[in-house]
Amino acid sequence: MVNPAGDVAAFFVSTRSLVDSELDQLIPSETQEPVRLHQAIRWSMFAGGKRFRPALVIATGEVFGASHEQLLRTACAFEMIHTYSLIHDDLPSMDDDELRRGRPTCHVKFGEATAILAGDALQGLAFQTIAEDPQLPAEIRVRLAAELARGAGTPAGMVSGQARDLDAESNTVDAHVLEQIHLEKTGALICAAARSGAIIGGANESELIAITDYATNLGLLFQITDDLLDVTATASEMGKTPGKDARSSKATYPAIHGIEATRAKIDAVHAAAGDALQRTDRRTDILKSIAEFVCIREA
Amino acid sequence: MVNPAGDVAAFFVSTRSLVDSELDQLIPSETQEPVRLHQAIRWSMFAGGKRFRPALVIATGEVFGASHEQLLRTACAFEMIHTYSLIHDDLPSMDDDELRRGRPTCHVKFGEATAILAGDALQGLAFQTIAEDPQLPAEIRVRLAAELARGAGTPAGMVSGQARDLDAESNTVDAHVLEQIHLEKTGALICAAARSGAIIGGANESELIAITDYATNLGLLFQITDDLLDVTATASEMGKTPGKDARSSKATYPAIHGIEATRAKIDAVHAAAGDALQRTDRRTDILKSIAEFVCIREA
Repeated sequence: MVNPAGDVAAFFVSTRSLVDSELDQLIPSETQEPVRLHQAIRWSMFAGGKRFRPALVIATGEVFGASHEQLLRTACAFEMIHTYSLIHDDLPSMDDDELRRGRPTCHVKFGEATAILAGDALQGLAFQTIAEDPQLPAEIRVRLAAELARGAGTPAGMVSGQARDLDAESNTVDAHVLEQIHLEKTGALICAAARSGAIIGGANESELIAITDYATNLGLLFQITDDLLDVTATASEMGKTPGKDARSSKATYPAIHGIEATRAKIDAVHAAAGDALQRTDRRTDILKSIAEFVCIREA
Repeated sequence: MVNPAGDVAAFFVSTRSLVDSELDQLIPSETQEPVRLHQAIRWSMFAGGKRFRPALVIATGEVFGASHEQLLRTACAFEMIHTYSLIHDDLPSMDDDELRRGRPTCHVKFGEATAILAGDALQGLAFQTIAEDPQLPAEIRVRLAAELARGAGTPAGMVSGQARDLDAESNTVDAHVLEQIHLEKTGALICAAARSGAIIGGANESELIAITDYATNLGLLFQITDDLLDVTATASEMGKTPGKDARSSKATYPAIHGIEATRAKIDAVHAAAGDALQRTDRRTDILKSIAEFVCIREA
């Protein structure tokens, strides 16, 4: 098997640089009042993330022939939503995390109230970024805003997934419930990111369905490998405390199914993602490589 | 002077009923999973608010000839943003309020984590509501989403106003800073609501400027009368603990200027709101009455 990690790594590096410089334009500067709020937003926004969701918007858009200019703002909007969710997730009343990517979390650095506001501001800025995108017609912008809202919201998006995850802490979670949590909490936004790239590129309805299948499996792959990583990795590899999920009795794949069955599930979901891509008549190598890359993380 | 309170009260009652039944359609039901999240959203959404911002969207829209059908979803979106801001404002790390309109606040009833998620979900739902509005062309929907985002966000919207307000708790606040807090924290969303109604009605650029001036003064009027109410009202009139602002050393108009100067400021701002309306060639009685109504609250 050819290892595609080199190419994908280069793709992530180049999209990350594009996205970071656009985000720098879109987000108020640290010297603009109220400075503490804007410092907090930038602290979390520029914390060394891979920009996975923006890369997925761009990769899917390129598959359908969209230009970087057409894709960049939407890519940034997805990263803003992702970052707001991390800020709120880390809060004391949620996951109570003090470190993220090896640095103090937003509320540890700036206080809880400012962290809540920083997340709130980022969510709004994400929708503003799409609504005011000068590169796209209004018809496309409203579709993208709806995709983003549904992927991030409730009843079948990121926020409902987080609410299900909260409920799971006080209830017994079976395999079905766990998969539902994963599909919404991580999957819905990843799915919306891929769909948005395809929409910008003008994908037709059957192509959109194929991309939705691909991205649904990609999101699942992402979360399951993340669960596995939490069990098998060391602190320095993760930038956070490994084993935290197990200690806080969070529902995870390895906890319910065991490590071997989790690896088998990863292979099956990976294959399903690849199968979905076969149903488009486009060159989807980059999307295949991204799925591969997500799997390799766990090695 | 004719007291317009009767007419305006009837207008608020009728728009409230329209808005509440539309909100009931737009928000996931309490039996839909995850139920705790949706119960929390509905607990705060249907807590007996006046629906002031929706009424303002509808009133301004009617002045410019828009229909209720064209205005209703946007009106609901503004109430969703307002409600999310109340839920997050009440949190222990923010204002730490246990009662709102005489009932336990969202985090007291459902826990802090669920309250944070309920607010987050409502913000997203607001943008979704506008993005998917079947009554308006896409060109108008993107303008409305941008208005909502700027009014609710940073650097010159509701969230930045709240961040300035937080900063004010640990700093001395002069009259200028206080006005800036008020303009952003309450004014920006009220201003965006009025502008949105005018945009849906097809107001031209000079009319939009006049409406912006009117609503900027209306927002200021709203916040200053609210400050005054906090000093002069009793608990049963307010549904919350009066004098709380003073005890927590929040910056308020009466605290900085005294009660008499605050009443004079109310008159001046009220007059400025009326003057702005004169600059449109429309019948603006309802908007004049709304300003009157805001003043009368403090009597």
